[in-house]
Amino acid sequence: MIQAQSVGVVEPRRIRFTEPLRLRGGGVLPEYDLVFETYGELNAARSNAVLVCHALSGSHHVAGHYADQPDNLGWWDNLIGPGRPLDTRRFFVIGVNNLGGCHGSTGPSSINPATGKRWGADFPFVTVEDWVSAQARLADQLGIERFAAIVGGSLGGMQALGWTLQYPQRVANAVVIAAAPRLSAENIAFNEVARQAILTDPEFHGGNFYEHGVVPARGLKLARMLGHITYLSDDSLAEKFGRTLRHGKAVYSYEVEFEVESYLRYQGDKFAGFFDANTYLLTTKALDYFDPAFEHGGNLPAALARSSADFLVVSFSTDWRFPPARSREIVYALLHNQRNVSYAEIPSAAGHDSFLLDDPHYHAVLRNYFERVEI
Amino acid sequence: MIQAQSVGVVEPRRIRFTEPLRLRGGGVLPEYDLVFETYGELNAARSNAVLVCHALSGSHHVAGHYADQPDNLGWWDNLIGPGRPLDTRRFFVIGVNNLGGCHGSTGPSSINPATGKRWGADFPFVTVEDWVSAQARLADQLGIERFAAIVGGSLGGMQALGWTLQYPQRVANAVVIAAAPRLSAENIAFNEVARQAILTDPEFHGGNFYEHGVVPARGLKLARMLGHITYLSDDSLAEKFGRTLRHGKAVYSYEVEFEVESYLRYQGDKFAGFFDANTYLLTTKALDYFDPAFEHGGNLPAALARSSADFLVVSFSTDWRFPPARSREIVYALLHNQRNVSYAEIPSAAGHDSFLLDDPHYHAVLRNYFERVEI
Repeated sequence: MIQAQSVGVVEPRRIRFTEPLRLRGGGVLPEYDLVFETYGELNAARSNAVLVCHALSGSHHVAGHYADQPDNLGWWDNLIGPGRPLDTRRFFVIGVNNLGGCHGSTGPSSINPATGKRWGADFPFVTVEDWVSAQARLADQLGIERFAAIVGGSLGGMQALGWTLQYPQRVANAVVIAAAPRLSAENIAFNEVARQAILTDPEFHGGNFYEHGVVPARGLKLARMLGHITYLSDDSLAEKFGRTLRHGKAVYSYEVEFEVESYLRYQGDKFAGFFDANTYLLTTKALDYFDPAFEHGGNLPAALARSSADFLVVSFSTDWRFPPARSREIVYALLHNQRNVSYAEIPSAAGHDSFLLDDPHYHAVLRNYFERVEI
Repeated sequence: MIQAQSVGVVEPRRIRFTEPLRLRGGGVLPEYDLVFETYGELNAARSNAVLVCHALSGSHHVAGHYADQPDNLGWWDNLIGPGRPLDTRRFFVIGVNNLGGCHGSTGPSSINPATGKRWGADFPFVTVEDWVSAQARLADQLGIERFAAIVGGSLGGMQALGWTLQYPQRVANAVVIAAAPRLSAENIAFNEVARQAILTDPEFHGGNFYEHGVVPARGLKLARMLGHITYLSDDSLAEKFGRTLRHGKAVYSYEVEFEVESYLRYQGDKFAGFFDANTYLLTTKALDYFDPAFEHGGNLPAALARSSADFLVVSFSTDWRFPPARSREIVYALLHNQRNVSYAEIPSAAGHDSFLLDDPHYHAVLRNYFERVEI
C-alpha cells in the first residue's frame, strides 16, 4: 500500500452553459459558467465518477493545491487523493462551485448580460434542486451518465440526497454526511439572524453594494461569527478556549477579554474579507427551502420512494446543528422504502465541523464504503 | 385554602444612595438610585424577606400590575402572590432593578452628575458582585439584616449564588434556577456576537447615541433575535413554528417566509423599541465575568466553601443555555462542602425560558421548598 497523499497540483476549469436554466424560484439564468476541478482519471467505461457537493462556504476547490498557492489546500483534501479514503487511483472526483456562489461560477457578483452590471440583488434565488440540475448539465458535458457516488457534508449532503430524487438513475451511491432532510425551526432561526445582520447593514445597499465600492462587512462578520458557534460544539469550544482570558484577568472593556472572542472576531473578519454577502444570503435561503417531503405532505418516506441509490449516512455525536436524530430520519425513510442504507454515528467532540476533519473512525467508515462502491 | 391570585396593584419605589459605590471593575458610582417593588408585609421580626433577582432583560417589576397598566404584569407574576408558590401572605418579597439597568435604577441612560449629560459609554462596568453590594445596601435601608431567601433564574440565579458568598450570614436560603456557576465558552461566544451586533451598529456612536437622538436598533434587534433562540429549545421552536410558511408555499424573497422568522423579527423589534443598548452590553459582560471559582484556581467547591445557606437548585431538561449539567456543578460543589442542597431537574420542552413558566411540576417544587423556609 502506498503512503496516502494529496492529489498535488490542481487547476480549476470553467465551462459556459448557454442553454437557459429555469430555476425553481421562478427565475431564469440565460447563460452561466460553472467552475470545477477534477482529480484522478475518468475510466473508459465512464463509471468511476464521484461528485463532491459543497456546503455554505465551500467551493470547487476540494482537494490539492494550486501551483502558485501551495498552502491553499482544498477543503476536503484530507479525504481525497491516492490512498486516501476517496481514492483517486480508483475514482474520478469532481468538485464544482454552485450557481450563486462567489468562487468563479456565475453568481451575484458576476456580470448580468442583460445590464452589463453585476447581478447584485437581481440574481435569482437558487435552490438545492437548481444546483443539482446545473451539476447534471456539467455531468452531461463531461460525458458522465451515472455517478458511482455523490458525496457531501451538511448542505452538500442535501445535494447528494437531492440527486437521488431528481435523477435516481444517475447516481449509484449517495454519501450523506452531517445533514438533515430539512432544516428545523431553530436552524431557520439562526439563518434568519445571519440574514438580518447582512440585510440591515447600511453598506448592503439592498444587495447592490458593488456599485458603491463597499461590502457589508459588519453584517457578514456577524453572520460568520454566529455560524461558527453552530458549527462547533459546547465541548469543543470549552476544550479550545474555555474561559481563558487574554490578559490573565478581566480588564473590563469591550476589547477582547476571552480568547473565544478573539477567535470569533478573527474568523468573522477573515470571512468578511472574501465572501460575497449575496451568496451568503442565497445559500442560507437554499438551506431553508430544501424540503423534499414538502410536496408529500411532510411524509419523508413517501418523498424518498423515488430514490434508488445505495446510501451511506453519517452523523456526529456532538453535532447540534444537524444532530444524529436528523440523519436517522433519512435512514428510517430509506429503510421504509427497503433501500440499502448504511449508517454510522461517529463519536466526535468537534460538532458539525467534524465532517471536515480526518477522524480515524470517520475516515475508516468512508474508506470501507468507497472500497465497496462498484465501478 | 384561598384561590391563588396575583398581588394586584403595585407601585415602584425609589431610594437614592449617596455613599459612593466602588465597583469591582475599577469604577465608582458617586451616587445612585435603585428602583424596587415590594409585595406582602415585612413581619415584626424582619425575618420573612425574600429578594428576587432579575436576569438580562428583567426589572424590579416582578409581580402584580400598575394601576394604570392592568396588562403589564410582573415578569414572575405567576410565581408570586397570595396562595402562589412564593406566598405573599407569608413572605415580604422585593424586586429591584439592578445598577446599569434601564428600568429606573441608575444606568447608562441616567444623567452623570459630573457632566450633566447621560452616562452613555462612561457608565462603569458593573458585575454580579456589584449588584449584590447594591442590593445589600437596599436591604440595609429596608431594615433587613438577613433574607429568608434570595431567588433568581439565569443571571438572577447567579446573583442568589453570589449573595451566599459575599454575605453568607445574610441569606438563609438561596434558590438558584436555570443557572450556571460561570458561563461556558459557547455562552460567552453568543454574548460576543450580540455585543458586536450593537457595537458595530453605526447608530451606536460609541455608546453615546443619546446625544445623536438615535438608538442602535438594528444591533439590539439582532442581539435579541439571537438571544431568543438560545432561550428556547429546538423542540419548542419546532412545536410552536415548525416549518410553517406564511404564504403556504415558498415565495422566494427576503421577507418573512417561515413563521419563526416573523416571531423573531417581532421580538427583536419590540425589544429594540424599549431596551437600552448600553444596558444590554453591560449585562452580557456581567454574565461573562461572573466566576466565583476564578480566584480559587477554577475550584468551585473551594469557592463555595464560604457559603452557609441552604440551597434549592433547579434545572430544566431542554435548557441548552445552562443545561442541567451546569446546575449539577453547583450542587456537587455544595455537597462537597456538606451544605444542605435540594436539586430538581424539571422535564420541560421550553428550554431556558422554562424558569418563567408556570409548569405544575416546577411550581410544586418551589412551593414545597418555600413552605419549608423558616421565618
